[in-house]
Amino acid sequence: MVIVDILRATSCMVSGFANGVKGIIPVATLEECKEYQKNGFICAAERGGKQVDGFELDNSPFSYMNEKLKEKTICATTTNGTLAISKSINAEKVIIGAFLNLSAIALYLENQPNDVIIHCAGWKGKVNMEDSLFAGALIEKLLHSHDLNCDASHMALTYYQGVKNKLLSTVQNSAHAKRLVKIGINKDIEFCLEIDRFNVIPVLTGKTLMKME
Amino acid sequence: MVIVDILRATSCMVSGFANGVKGIIPVATLEECKEYQKNGFICAAERGGKQVDGFELDNSPFSYMNEKLKEKTICATTTNGTLAISKSINAEKVIIGAFLNLSAIALYLENQPNDVIIHCAGWKGKVNMEDSLFAGALIEKLLHSHDLNCDASHMALTYYQGVKNKLLSTVQNSAHAKRLVKIGINKDIEFCLEIDRFNVIPVLTGKTLMKME
Repeated sequence: MVIVDILRATSCMVSGFANGVKGIIPVATLEECKEYQKNGFICAAERGGKQVDGFELDNSPFSYMNEKLKEKTICATTTNGTLAISKSINAEKVIIGAFLNLSAIALYLENQPNDVIIHCAGWKGKVNMEDSLFAGALIEKLLHSHDLNCDASHMALTYYQGVKNKLLSTVQNSAHAKRLVKIGINKDIEFCLEIDRFNVIPVLTGKTLMKME
Repeated sequence: MVIVDILRATSCMVSGFANGVKGIIPVATLEECKEYQKNGFICAAERGGKQVDGFELDNSPFSYMNEKLKEKTICATTTNGTLAISKSINAEKVIIGAFLNLSAIALYLENQPNDVIIHCAGWKGKVNMEDSLFAGALIEKLLHSHDLNCDASHMALTYYQGVKNKLLSTVQNSAHAKRLVKIGINKDIEFCLEIDRFNVIPVLTGKTLMKME
């Protein structure tokens, strides 16, 4: 199972591990996050695109690339992304995908024997553009090793192929990106749409995301 | 609200009205259909693509274009399409869409002031190819009169534009079409993908679909 929340949870996670973060504990609720904070963890908490008062980190990949987080295990909760992880806890293996590590996860997946489910976090239960486009991009890379299982895969693939030459401008016009631009984080969007900047695969190990060795 | 179940419920309804059917009462369950049958209605009942034993009609558009149904009101239940109608009963206006009457409904919609929701019946709660492609086709026709409201609309539009020059072969490869081909109804699929064969708009009036005058 590949979890994806391009704007911005899984892009943050990939950026964090690429820059020395040791572990990320994804939790669904602010209450759980607060518990970890009481036990000394640095915590990232976002709701509706904004940092929640009382927690150290927001949901920007730039915040995850901080020297202070090197070798640290942090706790994170976001509107959609960490919820998607919580819902996938029973999958055989959960890895974290983003455009930032697209080829790394494709290479891993094409060399393992299991079926692949791409779990798009979306936006509050609805389909969104950027996660669907990531699904299409990953499917395109897996076409030689895997078959399409359903119409949704075909739709995501065709969608991606239709706009891949103008990926950034397309996503900048998405409903979610417009929400984020309103709160001033256009540079996050550009960063999250970069393909293959990093070569790491976060993998869920127990309740904690770790860097796959 | 436009309800669409290309394979085959809404294609059947459009074909029926274009060929003289007076009214269609869509019901969600076989039990309700049985009640109408007891009261003398001709009934169409389909589950999993096949005609249900004990009812007069299956879910093929050719069955709906029968001389015997002229001026008759019939009752119909199908796996996905009539369920979608039942769920939409509180919408301000419910009309029935198919490729067969695409331009007729587009022309109607572009000249009325309301927002448009395209309700894709899908397959047992999941997205399917042919209904999403119809949504994209209708959205393309409404681009000059309406704005896109969400990422799902953009995805359906891009999806349709990506395959519209090979619409039939694309749908013939869909999961649902493959199920239908297995039970021998490839000619239904070809018929349901014909664009603008008919110029009728079924509209829900109380509990009964009637031809819009």
